[in-house]
Amino acid sequence: MTKPPGSLGVLEDVAAQLCGTAGTCPPPLPAPTAVAVFAADHGVHTQGVTPWPQEVTAQMVANLVRGGAVVNAFAAQLGADVVVVDVGVATSYAVEATPALLRRKVRYGTADLAVGPAMTLDEARLAVEAGIEVATTLAADHGCLVTGDMGITNTTASAALVCAFTGASPAEATGRGTGVDDRTLARKVEVVTRAVARVPERPTTPEAALAAVAELGGLEHAALAGFVLGAAAARVPVLLDGVIAGSAALVAAALCPTALEHALAGHTSAEPGHGLALRALGLRPLLGLDLRLGEGTGALLALPLVASAARALRDVATFDSAGVTGKDE
Amino acid sequence: MTKPPGSLGVLEDVAAQLCGTAGTCPPPLPAPTAVAVFAADHGVHTQGVTPWPQEVTAQMVANLVRGGAVVNAFAAQLGADVVVVDVGVATSYAVEATPALLRRKVRYGTADLAVGPAMTLDEARLAVEAGIEVATTLAADHGCLVTGDMGITNTTASAALVCAFTGASPAEATGRGTGVDDRTLARKVEVVTRAVARVPERPTTPEAALAAVAELGGLEHAALAGFVLGAAAARVPVLLDGVIAGSAALVAAALCPTALEHALAGHTSAEPGHGLALRALGLRPLLGLDLRLGEGTGALLALPLVASAARALRDVATFDSAGVTGKDE
Repeated sequence: MTKPPGSLGVLEDVAAQLCGTAGTCPPPLPAPTAVAVFAADHGVHTQGVTPWPQEVTAQMVANLVRGGAVVNAFAAQLGADVVVVDVGVATSYAVEATPALLRRKVRYGTADLAVGPAMTLDEARLAVEAGIEVATTLAADHGCLVTGDMGITNTTASAALVCAFTGASPAEATGRGTGVDDRTLARKVEVVTRAVARVPERPTTPEAALAAVAELGGLEHAALAGFVLGAAAARVPVLLDGVIAGSAALVAAALCPTALEHALAGHTSAEPGHGLALRALGLRPLLGLDLRLGEGTGALLALPLVASAARALRDVATFDSAGVTGKDE
Repeated sequence: MTKPPGSLGVLEDVAAQLCGTAGTCPPPLPAPTAVAVFAADHGVHTQGVTPWPQEVTAQMVANLVRGGAVVNAFAAQLGADVVVVDVGVATSYAVEATPALLRRKVRYGTADLAVGPAMTLDEARLAVEAGIEVATTLAADHGCLVTGDMGITNTTASAALVCAFTGASPAEATGRGTGVDDRTLARKVEVVTRAVARVPERPTTPEAALAAVAELGGLEHAALAGFVLGAAAARVPVLLDGVIAGSAALVAAALCPTALEHALAGHTSAEPGHGLALRALGLRPLLGLDLRLGEGTGALLALPLVASAARALRDVATFDSAGVTGKDE
């Protein structure tokens, strides 16, 4: 190619990974792209770990389906489809039947992880399977998948999962999510500490991973873990969003370590647990913009980088074909 | 908007800047976009500061016009136009007349900056004016401009400009460009040291800035400085690429300090002088991908971030319009 070797930096690694995932070089362009926004509620909401009312999850599901959320604006700009997957929203929402909403509700929100298991092992398995199924279905007519999430209090469950899977302390892994004050943050750390104590540290087998996500997770975490597995099985690249996806990817890596070879970290969020998860996974984030919104926004913003990396491999002339002289060696 | 305040991080600053540049909120989408690749040659090539033959500049101009370079692939992917502006290519190239090539040659390459002024003051002024004119013309039918560059040895002139305008030492500001070995790097540092000694440190007046770019610059640096001024005058955002644009922006800032209020740093390159320039300008780069290719590639990759920031302001629902409950205060 008519460029100095290595001059595309990180994008050269991305391009190589895309070739590996597709099994061809140049790889197909990662298009069309689908963002799957996994929505669920969390029983731990009753612990007062967020200033947002729980019904905001259901309200945002309606907003997402109608196209009014930030991820919809980004998807419109970047040419991606948005699909909302209800795996566990607790309160009701009035949305007409539309292909943009997949109803895969496993239960109406999790139980309170501060006092006991968030869900049963069977429910965790069902949620993982829902994620696999959604990825498989979307991969049939999409060349790239993007993780999204919506769930009031889901950063609390994410912090607990990060601690369990990486050995990080609750104080370092727990952040302010969508904006909590010092008192609420202290309560959040305390809740995470209590919950993590019930789980054996650093689960590495599939059984232990499933048990950990059942104990600590949200239904969207279990589903997102499945989504990562499903994308890998379909040999389609999957772009991970923030701390929800990062903590779910830790679960996926324990369920099937090679699955992460097909994942790309779209960005690193302002939430401290996210960086811990990415380091544990050995993933280098493509963007660092201090985002802390979720919904898939940060991953989606990285899509043009991935697409451009693939495009360069396909389109760029060689020194020979362009008649450009090489460097003196 | 249906998102927690501040949750879009750096993109919120970008959105605010776009509003300021346009004088409206929401701002227009930064589209269509034009990348102007300013091409020129450098007399300092005779000092042996690069392993690439000088005629590669002309060969790459032809490759760029034919659409075979990396910036063309990225532009095709991201929906941008590429225009090549010859402000000082030294050797001949056979390219048919096309709107993709603007012939604004000021002279056939600069003189050797290691031994004397790279160009006269008049030539520097002509190059700045060419940049202003190109920006003005492109801004008439484009909503966003992107800086690009092509010129074998242009990182040497960039390092000299960075030292002159920031006070950095040649050893810290001079990098390996498109890949030079230790011996060539040492020669490059020595050349930069000699050249910078001839220029008063930290020019801040327009006259001093023009004198400095005439002494040390490439013709593309002078033209890019004008391009930044022209974009600002037209109130169109301009995305800066790597160390060539960064060092040219230092010239632009000394010519007209407020011009930089309309500029965005697309990325930070692997070239050390680039970070020094951005810090001096107070610009935070949107991407950090270790690119070191030039052509406008890094700036262009940041375009979707800028477009998405603008799009969010235009499209995203408010809490009221979406029926979403706000957080408890």
